[in-house]
Amino acid sequence: MTAVTYEHIKTCRQSGARLGKVHTPHGSFDTPAFMPVGTLATVKTLSPEELESMGAGMILSNTYHLWIRPGEDIVEEAGGLHKFMNWNKPILTDSGGFQVFSLSKLRDIKEEGVHFRNHISGAKLFLSPEKAMQIQNSLGADVMMAFDECPPYPAEEEYMKASVERTTRWAERCLEAHTRPKDQALFGIVQGGDYQHLREKSAKELISMDFPGYAIGGLSVGEPKETMNRVLEYTAPLLPQNKPRYLMGVGSADALIDGSIRGIDMFDCVLPTRIGRNGTCMTSKGRLVVRNASNARDFRPIDEACSCYTCRNYSRAYIRHLIKSEETFGVRLTSYHNLYFLLSLMQQVREAIQQDRLLDFRETFFEQYGFNRPDAKNF
Amino acid sequence: MTAVTYEHIKTCRQSGARLGKVHTPHGSFDTPAFMPVGTLATVKTLSPEELESMGAGMILSNTYHLWIRPGEDIVEEAGGLHKFMNWNKPILTDSGGFQVFSLSKLRDIKEEGVHFRNHISGAKLFLSPEKAMQIQNSLGADVMMAFDECPPYPAEEEYMKASVERTTRWAERCLEAHTRPKDQALFGIVQGGDYQHLREKSAKELISMDFPGYAIGGLSVGEPKETMNRVLEYTAPLLPQNKPRYLMGVGSADALIDGSIRGIDMFDCVLPTRIGRNGTCMTSKGRLVVRNASNARDFRPIDEACSCYTCRNYSRAYIRHLIKSEETFGVRLTSYHNLYFLLSLMQQVREAIQQDRLLDFRETFFEQYGFNRPDAKNF
Ligand SMILES: [Zn+2]
Ligand SMILES: [Zn+2]
Repeated sequence: MTAVTYEHIKTCRQSGARLGKVHTPHGSFDTPAFMPVGTLATVKTLSPEELESMGAGMILSNTYHLWIRPGEDIVEEAGGLHKFMNWNKPILTDSGGFQVFSLSKLRDIKEEGVHFRNHISGAKLFLSPEKAMQIQNSLGADVMMAFDECPPYPAEEEYMKASVERTTRWAERCLEAHTRPKDQALFGIVQGGDYQHLREKSAKELISMDFPGYAIGGLSVGEPKETMNRVLEYTAPLLPQNKPRYLMGVGSADALIDGSIRGIDMFDCVLPTRIGRNGTCMTSKGRLVVRNASNARDFRPIDEACSCYTCRNYSRAYIRHLIKSEETFGVRLTSYHNLYFLLSLMQQVREAIQQDRLLDFRETFFEQYGFNRPDAKNF
Repeated sequence: MTAVTYEHIKTCRQSGARLGKVHTPHGSFDTPAFMPVGTLATVKTLSPEELESMGAGMILSNTYHLWIRPGEDIVEEAGGLHKFMNWNKPILTDSGGFQVFSLSKLRDIKEEGVHFRNHISGAKLFLSPEKAMQIQNSLGADVMMAFDECPPYPAEEEYMKASVERTTRWAERCLEAHTRPKDQALFGIVQGGDYQHLREKSAKELISMDFPGYAIGGLSVGEPKETMNRVLEYTAPLLPQNKPRYLMGVGSADALIDGSIRGIDMFDCVLPTRIGRNGTCMTSKGRLVVRNASNARDFRPIDEACSCYTCRNYSRAYIRHLIKSEETFGVRLTSYHNLYFLLSLMQQVREAIQQDRLLDFRETFFEQYGFNRPDAKNF
């Protein structure tokens, strides 16, 4: 028995999407699911109770950032990440790989691992499969991720092939180094860019190692939406039916629906909290830039169709005032609404799967949100 | 019947402190009371539900700041300050006078009012008794304050006398201009610095105008602690027994106790939230600078004697990590604790009055907090 298991409930007859439940040592959550991101052991501005009240199941925290601050040893001494941050529900930690490849300009990729510089102090650091496992074992999340190479998009086929092979070798070293398989599930990450045969190669190699779950990496890195969907269409079916599938770094409403349709169970992204900090909200009718002057005397809620704490109690005018005045409570309110919006969207997606009508739901949602407009953006 | 009334419950036989209740159109609260400050229609980082959960009765908001942003007309259109900020309990607004005298470097005091510059845009502004009343009537707080001159400390006797006389004339104009006496109570402000005969003159003149409550202004402006206590000792007894007494700008634990002993019913100060933002907490054993390196591996709560949300769920190590990482949730936690600490202190003060032992309580509290140490500071 692995630490984390997937229970399949049903497949949507209209779309092929999966309805399921992921069971972890800290409880279960329904899938498809969106996971709020708590980079530094806090989902920015929000309390654990607020996350729970909006229906968050699993949250994600970043190994790289926690390694730098406060240090995984302190988190471990505190009794692990759940206790440290007062979140007694499921947590997933990434491997640190993505941050090494995206935040650090100076890096040197060797077979052994990656030498790079701390994005804050500039100090020299080294991250390897073994180190990423040691940190994640100290943090103690329910799901931890293999340390992979995150190639840029686009990448040459030659480079991508070598990278996929390295990711496989690193995955083996991760499995080997992982010390807590009974209470922490290690997921493998399928890479390969938009080369179908490399995705197939990566999936095949990783599946032979029998990870308790699989992620699809290297998407949502700047490629067109159609590319992402095409890659998902040929990659997801390669993965085991009885294990959770996680699409990394995806959090726009359209991609959550389109990913679910292609058989994805888990998603994460900083998008809702990041745009919330900037005074932008997702609503059932598309994006609303609440900090715009046009909202100065608008006493309606952010989204009249939303029943979240923010929309039940506060006006656009008030939230705009707070954000213009750089008052933290404004960002709390927009962050709350945005996360609630995505978590509630996933709830609707699950209901639509249950009722075999996810394609219909997609059609209605896209039309109302504005994704069908010629000028629609990836939001 | 005025909008706000004071119900006297008992006088502490040991100290002379007053136990009472202030009744307002938005509910009642027990006195002596500390009022959290919500400068821009938000008590920084916290929600109304959190304020309520920590036992806040009345909160204060700043006329000057709301006039500048978002503008009192927008607050009025929203249905008033209570509705705008989702706080259905008592609110007090100051007159804007203090900000004009403290924030603005360029100001010209005339009998008509004060010409000065906006502290944000630099634009020319004019505030007068009539304007301060118009703004406060638009905001709609339960208690509003007369527009007074706030003289610096120390000030020459001659200057102070002229200032007190002007404050009296301005108070008359405020009473005249106030349009909502039935649902908003206007308090007069006794000035006079540390000149006893000027405090007496100010009190006498204002009491003859029969305000529903009185504030003591011009204290906590840099004078020694002993001076404040002496001024309170001869000023408070001048005020009517059957009306609330408000000491403006005071929020250190010692001054709250010493003010209560001298017959004060209401206090306000930004201190708890301001030091909280900086990673400093008030505890039963004195100040704790939680952001200090010594707390990096300290898994105890901020105050082991405290039962607030922060202390029940989070360690010093976690809060230090958040504040060092500039994560808002850290400031939420310290702000919550600090406000809870002062509100709980006032609860203990009220119990001590009830039991005629406020001087004993003071002795014990001061000893434990460290106020009796030779190097004790005003905190
Ligand atoms: Zn909402
Ligand atoms: Zn506390």
